[in-house]
Amino acid sequence: MAPSLDETPTTTLPHNGSKLGTTSACCYSGVDSKSASSQQMRDVKNPSLHVTKDRTIKMAEAPILRPGPGDALIHVKVTGICGSDVHFWRSGKIGTLTVDGDCILGHEAAGIVLEVGEGVTTLKKGDRVAMEPQVPCGTCFLCSNGNYNLCDDVQFAGVYPYHGSLQRYKVHPARWLHKIPDNVTYSQGALLEPLSVVMHGITRTRLALGRGAVVCGAGPIGLIALAAARASGAHPIVITDLEPRRLKFAKEFVPSCQRYQIDRSLDAQGNARGIRKLFGETEYHAPETILECTGVESSIVTAAYTVRRGGDLMVIGVGKDIMNNLPFMHISLAEINLKFINRYSDTWPSGIRALEGEILDLDKLVTHTFPLEEAISAMELCGDITKGSIKVHVVDDRDDVGL
Amino acid sequence: MAPSLDETPTTTLPHNGSKLGTTSACCYSGVDSKSASSQQMRDVKNPSLHVTKDRTIKMAEAPILRPGPGDALIHVKVTGICGSDVHFWRSGKIGTLTVDGDCILGHEAAGIVLEVGEGVTTLKKGDRVAMEPQVPCGTCFLCSNGNYNLCDDVQFAGVYPYHGSLQRYKVHPARWLHKIPDNVTYSQGALLEPLSVVMHGITRTRLALGRGAVVCGAGPIGLIALAAARASGAHPIVITDLEPRRLKFAKEFVPSCQRYQIDRSLDAQGNARGIRKLFGETEYHAPETILECTGVESSIVTAAYTVRRGGDLMVIGVGKDIMNNLPFMHISLAEINLKFINRYSDTWPSGIRALEGEILDLDKLVTHTFPLEEAISAMELCGDITKGSIKVHVVDDRDDVGL
Amino acid sequence: MAPSLDETPTTTLPHNGSKLGTTSACCYSGVDSKSASSQQMRDVKNPSLHVTKDRTIKMAEAPILRPGPGDALIHVKVTGICGSDVHFWRSGKIGTLTVDGDCILGHEAAGIVLEVGEGVTTLKKGDRVAMEPQVPCGTCFLCSNGNYNLCDDVQFAGVYPYHGSLQRYKVHPARWLHKIPDNVTYSQGALLEPLSVVMHGITRTRLALGRGAVVCGAGPIGLIALAAARASGAHPIVITDLEPRRLKFAKEFVPSCQRYQIDRSLDAQGNARGIRKLFGETEYHAPETILECTGVESSIVTAAYTVRRGGDLMVIGVGKDIMNNLPFMHISLAEINLKFINRYSDTWPSGIRALEGEILDLDKLVTHTFPLEEAISAMELCGDITKGSIKVHVVDDRDDVGL
Amino acid sequence: MAPSLDETPTTTLPHNGSKLGTTSACCYSGVDSKSASSQQMRDVKNPSLHVTKDRTIKMAEAPILRPGPGDALIHVKVTGICGSDVHFWRSGKIGTLTVDGDCILGHEAAGIVLEVGEGVTTLKKGDRVAMEPQVPCGTCFLCSNGNYNLCDDVQFAGVYPYHGSLQRYKVHPARWLHKIPDNVTYSQGALLEPLSVVMHGITRTRLALGRGAVVCGAGPIGLIALAAARASGAHPIVITDLEPRRLKFAKEFVPSCQRYQIDRSLDAQGNARGIRKLFGETEYHAPETILECTGVESSIVTAAYTVRRGGDLMVIGVGKDIMNNLPFMHISLAEINLKFINRYSDTWPSGIRALEGEILDLDKLVTHTFPLEEAISAMELCGDITKGSIKVHVVDDRDDVGL
Repeated sequence: MAPSLDETPTTTLPHNGSKLGTTSACCYSGVDSKSASSQQMRDVKNPSLHVTKDRTIKMAEAPILRPGPGDALIHVKVTGICGSDVHFWRSGKIGTLTVDGDCILGHEAAGIVLEVGEGVTTLKKGDRVAMEPQVPCGTCFLCSNGNYNLCDDVQFAGVYPYHGSLQRYKVHPARWLHKIPDNVTYSQGALLEPLSVVMHGITRTRLALGRGAVVCGAGPIGLIALAAARASGAHPIVITDLEPRRLKFAKEFVPSCQRYQIDRSLDAQGNARGIRKLFGETEYHAPETILECTGVESSIVTAAYTVRRGGDLMVIGVGKDIMNNLPFMHISLAEINLKFINRYSDTWPSGIRALEGEILDLDKLVTHTFPLEEAISAMELCGDITKGSIKVHVVDDRDDVGL
Repeated sequence: MAPSLDETPTTTLPHNGSKLGTTSACCYSGVDSKSASSQQMRDVKNPSLHVTKDRTIKMAEAPILRPGPGDALIHVKVTGICGSDVHFWRSGKIGTLTVDGDCILGHEAAGIVLEVGEGVTTLKKGDRVAMEPQVPCGTCFLCSNGNYNLCDDVQFAGVYPYHGSLQRYKVHPARWLHKIPDNVTYSQGALLEPLSVVMHGITRTRLALGRGAVVCGAGPIGLIALAAARASGAHPIVITDLEPRRLKFAKEFVPSCQRYQIDRSLDAQGNARGIRKLFGETEYHAPETILECTGVESSIVTAAYTVRRGGDLMVIGVGKDIMNNLPFMHISLAEINLKFINRYSDTWPSGIRALEGEILDLDKLVTHTFPLEEAISAMELCGDITKGSIKVHVVDDRDDVGL
Repeated sequence: MAPSLDETPTTTLPHNGSKLGTTSACCYSGVDSKSASSQQMRDVKNPSLHVTKDRTIKMAEAPILRPGPGDALIHVKVTGICGSDVHFWRSGKIGTLTVDGDCILGHEAAGIVLEVGEGVTTLKKGDRVAMEPQVPCGTCFLCSNGNYNLCDDVQFAGVYPYHGSLQRYKVHPARWLHKIPDNVTYSQGALLEPLSVVMHGITRTRLALGRGAVVCGAGPIGLIALAAARASGAHPIVITDLEPRRLKFAKEFVPSCQRYQIDRSLDAQGNARGIRKLFGETEYHAPETILECTGVESSIVTAAYTVRRGGDLMVIGVGKDIMNNLPFMHISLAEINLKFINRYSDTWPSGIRALEGEILDLDKLVTHTFPLEEAISAMELCGDITKGSIKVHVVDDRDDVGL
Repeated sequence: MAPSLDETPTTTLPHNGSKLGTTSACCYSGVDSKSASSQQMRDVKNPSLHVTKDRTIKMAEAPILRPGPGDALIHVKVTGICGSDVHFWRSGKIGTLTVDGDCILGHEAAGIVLEVGEGVTTLKKGDRVAMEPQVPCGTCFLCSNGNYNLCDDVQFAGVYPYHGSLQRYKVHPARWLHKIPDNVTYSQGALLEPLSVVMHGITRTRLALGRGAVVCGAGPIGLIALAAARASGAHPIVITDLEPRRLKFAKEFVPSCQRYQIDRSLDAQGNARGIRKLFGETEYHAPETILECTGVESSIVTAAYTVRRGGDLMVIGVGKDIMNNLPFMHISLAEINLKFINRYSDTWPSGIRALEGEILDLDKLVTHTFPLEEAISAMELCGDITKGSIKVHVVDDRDDVGL
């Protein structure tokens, strides 16, 4: 039994559509969840992966909720595992967000609509959708002025106390489920979440056709940034990383990029000189935009010495609470725009169109897939950096899940 | 003899580099220009195509000027013919610019440096270059604040009284000759000028990855806009024109575009509905950016009804002095940003990189080429719209032209 | 009798707060409205000014509605009369908006909260508030991306079928009632609506400290634009109008402005030269921003010839559906940004602070006041341009209106 | 004797105007400079204040140069002392800029034109001018794209090896001498330089009418920022400092501001809470713009915790090469725009207009004046922070200095 599930089911308030709530709600099914083997999980109706307060993960049966007004119930077809999922598991928190009870993980998701709640006109049963996991309040000044990602009351699916998508059945406000066309797969639909992070960052720079760019870090976000920068016409593009293996993957993924392996024996200025040399000899040739996707202090400092005078240094990666060694006077004299982002706003529509039009092809990033019942194995693979996974998808492609 | 050439040779003032002047200058060769057959032109040293005050064009020998301080002398390898060249020939003027004497046409050019003037450090003999034809004053407030294209004292090569590039030898300020790398052809170098017009326009819109766009007009500028929008990640892209033949070319040029043939029997709102339908049914799906490349009133009005609320309508095309029938209240209620451009600023560097990186491939636009001696035939072809030329290049690829 | 009032009362739907509805709602009082003398109106509980389908205005008793969830009931203390109110009366429509039944006018309003509906936490009884009359849907893409003024489903108080504020008791969503501090009068609170129009326009220009500006038109919006531009540091500022009397008022209102009386015997370029001369002799001195507040074609054309190259021409005024004689090539060659607005978004907060801090003083604009019972006289005064009123306020300052 | 003066006089190259050179030039007078008493200095023709390689300052006679092509010779009427002048004296360097020889200090200057060089058409003898001390190359990509302040080859008057304005006669490129109208005093003309720093910063934020702002630091730049923010309509404005005496001055200077005295016993978040409280209780009320004018690490960190989500933190102050303790994750989650500036571009025109129109009144900032011959005393006063000077002006108001 998982009493915490009874205590924190997803609920549905009438809303700009609805909200992700934390109080009781009507269920289609009762719950008898428990840690279980994959084999056992195949028999439960709504298998789900939970992170617990004491830093473990477990599979359990979750209640199947009914969609309230403004909501839709979806069958989650694919959920991507994010580094933050592993972080919640291993550390029990990210910044001020703490896992204070059992919580279903998963926020990179796509699925199919099974049922819609009262008042929903934009979706119907059978629609294929990608989930925007953040549910803003819809009424505060930040929601009204185009910064709903900064809403103080955002409810985020997959972050305690809001259950995520690593389950078969998920209720979510219809407003934040975006229809995907037939030629966009569920896997691509799940990739829209990390793509959204990247697009939100790029939109806030002046990256453009024929303008040089550097992507720092060849992890999942860096690789998506590489592809998105390339699809936006930036050129030349240099990607940096410490690991040759990751740079090799990057080069295969976007062959027209150049690679720069960070040299640990050099300081930030030394590495910056090396990166700049790939663009040309002078300030004139230096890259105008840096998409920093590691959040690591030394990488940000290197980026600051790399970017062209007056250019944009967009920090997409997240890192430690406090950063030291910022080259203040260099940034000041070079008038560098130091920008930061928090998630995304208004990115699913353009992300969907980019995938639909095959402007971007991110499929190769999905290096491993697991069935939902084996979600724990997916987490374990992601948590082991020696395994070289890029993006791991948890898939539930059964067709007979209708209620 | 062409006394006007003696009276208005290109000269060279010390300058933010130098300027295109109209007073006497030292020449390498005297001048004995005359109207001449192509055969005869093969014997002259500096064959050149002139437009005259009385609306004719003729070939004549032009003086070979020496580069002054800040200048470079180039062997022009390729010049593209622009609609404005034909317009100067046929109408004797464009707006307030009038052909008040003989003037060598040509402003879409690339070539090789033969000699540099005093003080030039950025170029040397043998450098391959693309010519930015506008030479701003370099000191006015518009030059200082990033709008040098708006400089009141811009001197424009190929517009009376400043000789253009339809000649073998051309002196131009080194500052406005941009080096092109080995993998960019002279033909591509000449295409940088119309590409610059398009890039200047696109930069001033919010066109981006996965955002819908419409290109109005499938002429040379429209086709380049189509390719540049595609290379910038816009999607879906619809191109419009009256002529199925031109739309067919567009579809072959950028296969992922959609076509809309303007229906003369419909009004602007009717055509706008038809274009919008290609994006989807709702305001939400309507295109966020229109690149209007015809300058024709009815096309601009259609564009105004097509663009999404709050979107950008960028008028790249030039048209009549006065425009009527602007749907003022529609534009106002939809808060459409109506933007206009005049040439370009700071576009050659990114244009070169886009071509160098093969982000853009514009080669198919060059449907016809002529040797320099037959430049009149090139002009005549461009002037006959029934011939279906897109971009005509005048080429002078002799290697033995050193002085 | 006014059965239409029973049929179209303001109602209240749960909402990103709530909405202005058109269906039946619970009332505090029944209705027995009729056309009536001011004397008679003093006895009714909720006197209100209606415009009718057949282009008349009348006073009638309106129902007193109860605030639904998300709503507040306010005692309207002041409503300003707008030109559009007179236009609805005289013409029966504005653009596509038609008066198809009785409708209470009034959208420039401030009042005091009498009661709040369920779920309202941001307001309480006794709060003094200014009303933002537009109520957007809160869920569409335009509401989410910061353009809620462009929402297709905006409900606008005072435009059929949504009743306005020219009544004693008004229900409005709490989200769109903005608290005003004690030192902001109700009259000032009502002025926030036209101020919002101006601020929305100015925000979209580059008007700034020490930058020249022109305000076209010395009517209420032009005068507020003049004051707001002055309070934003613009200098020099020239205001234009046809009427010396209006320019005299402008000069008294903002003594540091300069005046230019439009000369009907000159064309647009001639008047533009005259305006420019007040700034100085050269392009360098020309004004960078024009706030066009008339919407009249000739004024917009004059503005296009007046603004500096690369400058902003912001059309705040509304005018005819179709505009002719736009100097297309001039605007194109000068790369003028032609901008338009539709109402406002996110302006009440800054407007309130500007008034609270006495950064702006608009009090002198209120040239006439009438008690609510004499609202017809207020309308008649506004409708007679020979009377020289600037802003007319309808006031209901009784203290004993609690329910 | 000061042989270095013979070796590094200001010279004049033809130029986008001209440049500040370091090679020999023709002089009106020979030089026999020496350290001298004020009394003695009254007899010399061109008294000047030098900083030396060995960290001393001295008065000496400087050569009187003739204006070359593009130059103007001015009689410097007023020079303001800047903190950087004291810093060069005391430390011998600022960042990478080192005093490697004698150099005349002074870069906040205004004067009257005595003679213009060849080709100068924009100025004539008798014109009153303010000096923009930075002289960019005029041809690089940064000069062309509107960032001439970032030009790699900027020559800055008053920074070794370019002599400054703390002398009677100064040659400067005419392009960078801005005419001031009769109602702007020379003292105000000299204040345009620090005002330019502030205006460059403000232009890059969204500070606007009725938007809250914080100014950190009540030194000369902070006080000008306070006045400029107020003149731009920002409200409320809070100014912070450690010193009550400085905050008292600020309150007298701009009475509508609020003061916050930084509490050394609180951390950054504690002080941020205190500052925010002056704006109101919620995120909604938090200030949207911070103008950080100290460059001190703890102040920048406090500012980061103070600014509203999505707001602008503009670091105007300069500080240490390296900054630690940046609250990275807070800035990231709040999506704060962290901006930096380097000097100014295109600010004198608007600064002059702001002063001409009395939109800004900075006169009270000049707390002390000294005659040119006593420039050393001016420097000593500035260097002693216990004296409480704000801005010290060195004045040379003799009328009989014509050559």
